[in-house]
Amino acid sequence: MNFVISKEKFANALQIVSRAISPNSPIPSLSGVKITVSQKGVTLLGSNNDVTIQLTLSNESDPDNHISVIEEGEVVIDQRYVYEIVRKSDQENIIMEVIDGTLIRISDGVALFNINGYRVSDYPRLDLTVPPVSFEIKAETLHEVIDQTIFATSQKETQRPILFGVNFKSTGEQVIVTATDSYRLAKKTLDLKTDEFNVTISSKVLNDIHSIFSPSQNLKIFLNQSKIQVLCDNLLLQARLLEGSYPDTDRLIPTQFTRTLVVNRRELMRSIDYSSFMKVDNMAIIRLSMKNENEVSVKNKSQEIGDYNQDLKPIQFEGEPMDISFSSQYMLDAAKSIHSETVMIQFTQDMRPFVLRNPEDDTILQLVLPVKTYN
Amino acid sequence: MNFVISKEKFANALQIVSRAISPNSPIPSLSGVKITVSQKGVTLLGSNNDVTIQLTLSNESDPDNHISVIEEGEVVIDQRYVYEIVRKSDQENIIMEVIDGTLIRISDGVALFNINGYRVSDYPRLDLTVPPVSFEIKAETLHEVIDQTIFATSQKETQRPILFGVNFKSTGEQVIVTATDSYRLAKKTLDLKTDEFNVTISSKVLNDIHSIFSPSQNLKIFLNQSKIQVLCDNLLLQARLLEGSYPDTDRLIPTQFTRTLVVNRRELMRSIDYSSFMKVDNMAIIRLSMKNENEVSVKNKSQEIGDYNQDLKPIQFEGEPMDISFSSQYMLDAAKSIHSETVMIQFTQDMRPFVLRNPEDDTILQLVLPVKTYN
Repeated sequence: MNFVISKEKFANALQIVSRAISPNSPIPSLSGVKITVSQKGVTLLGSNNDVTIQLTLSNESDPDNHISVIEEGEVVIDQRYVYEIVRKSDQENIIMEVIDGTLIRISDGVALFNINGYRVSDYPRLDLTVPPVSFEIKAETLHEVIDQTIFATSQKETQRPILFGVNFKSTGEQVIVTATDSYRLAKKTLDLKTDEFNVTISSKVLNDIHSIFSPSQNLKIFLNQSKIQVLCDNLLLQARLLEGSYPDTDRLIPTQFTRTLVVNRRELMRSIDYSSFMKVDNMAIIRLSMKNENEVSVKNKSQEIGDYNQDLKPIQFEGEPMDISFSSQYMLDAAKSIHSETVMIQFTQDMRPFVLRNPEDDTILQLVLPVKTYN
Repeated sequence: MNFVISKEKFANALQIVSRAISPNSPIPSLSGVKITVSQKGVTLLGSNNDVTIQLTLSNESDPDNHISVIEEGEVVIDQRYVYEIVRKSDQENIIMEVIDGTLIRISDGVALFNINGYRVSDYPRLDLTVPPVSFEIKAETLHEVIDQTIFATSQKETQRPILFGVNFKSTGEQVIVTATDSYRLAKKTLDLKTDEFNVTISSKVLNDIHSIFSPSQNLKIFLNQSKIQVLCDNLLLQARLLEGSYPDTDRLIPTQFTRTLVVNRRELMRSIDYSSFMKVDNMAIIRLSMKNENEVSVKNKSQEIGDYNQDLKPIQFEGEPMDISFSSQYMLDAAKSIHSETVMIQFTQDMRPFVLRNPEDDTILQLVLPVKTYN
């Protein structure tokens, strides 16, 4: 193997596939990036068994890749080393060549490295066959869906593993996207005609998808019950889906409400965030006190630290007076995901879940469980 | 106590004094900032017993402070809480008032906090008397001296505590500034007429001085054998000096050399940094191979990872051929502190210390001990 490639393009590509590579993999060769050179171009592959990323660079797809293949072949080389060498070069092009067995020479014309690679035969065979269910989606849309739900996934090792992911369920006409850690829930509905499916994707995989595909790209998604592929041009991400059935969350969402509050979203977020340093048991609990349309306030109280009050200027309040307490962080996450000037909050009783909505967009819903307080 | 103050100026001042405050001090009141309000202005004081910072804000020193004193008095309040409240306000002014004993009301006109303070009588009495030895120095000069020496102080708990500091020794005509961790040494000479002194200042205190005084300020320094005060306008930093006598380091610095190499400083740093990821026992060891004026190269070798070579284009080399090995990080730190286009490196033998100099400025010297290698 022997080829020349643009330093900048090579560094970018190595960074993308690196997201799938664990430096300290129990299978040593998986710490490496597999580089396959043919007349078609240079293909980089990284995998941690759960997630695999494959990217092919060619002069056809981008003339700035400056690829010149002197000899075809393939190598596996530690991702950290090759990335460090390519990234830090201040020259235009990188020359990479197998000089003896697994010894790989990397040079930018000024500096010269000889790096010990892995045997290609030690690299696991990965099944990249294309699963049958498919649909297309703009990366921008998928990113927004991820942003609006991912924070509600569970982070607690003690909870069911399925809750570490975001559930995507297609009815044929719509895809319903749900995340919950059982204390709050995020739900987003997409109008999208597809075959029916019901899959749960881990938040780590969703973060990878968010980071490697840029908003303007059109993505092709392929699914079966065990894996997902996301494809755009020469970049492919394949990931294992989470196993198990996702809980039925629809019954958790109240359908009838007794109180409705509409407030400026930024004003609400600021007033909640302002006293987030006042914590009890490492958690900031905010109390929302609603008396009438002119008297709505945000409070916090800590025996040790002191207390806090800020009056809001609500746009609308309907219903009987009520005080309700909740986690500052949960409310901030929920309000942040609602991309509108105002937010509508609907309540039933003080110890029942309440929901946040965008008054102009009923495809997004956030549910938060209140917290019991003793002061 | 009751006063009004500019939000922005108050936040800046709280941040400055916070550098002396440990949030989890064994003396609880030292987690607080002491605020003294008189007709002269608002004085903030923070201390961890080793370092004390005092800052007075008044309308005379800066009309933008917008101070209005309604009632004189003093309080001690947890620095984290008051800083968080002031920093996050989006209003122009902050109103701060003692409402009951140690309960302090802080408001920006929209939000209202009541915060439990500490009893002023519980705050330790601090001796801020002015020590006798004094001189003046531009903050910019002092910052440069700190930058050129501080990295060479010891970080290892196992070494003598005196090596955690930078030594400042005045001969009357010059101040010689020295730092060493016993593997390398940084030495800077300042032409400065002062009374004689010999003090060692901890690197933490020097970082504080660097960060709270801005380069354009003229500093007054006051010293005795146990403490230093740095004063500029309304800002005072007082710190305990390190106890013990600083080792005599002059005998470590060779005076005669057998080889001299002059190279472009950035080229040298780049070539050393480039293979810093190739580590043995968590340390990158670089080998500088000098054959003659046309053959000087930077090498690195790791049994596990591979090897590296980059040829330099030396400006000058005099002496017999020699290979010498050293810590990549030590050489980078030393070269970085020499603010010139080229660097002159003088050697004696391959296992003896070598020195780096600025060819145009003989006030700065860096000494590095070589490392023994077996390949």
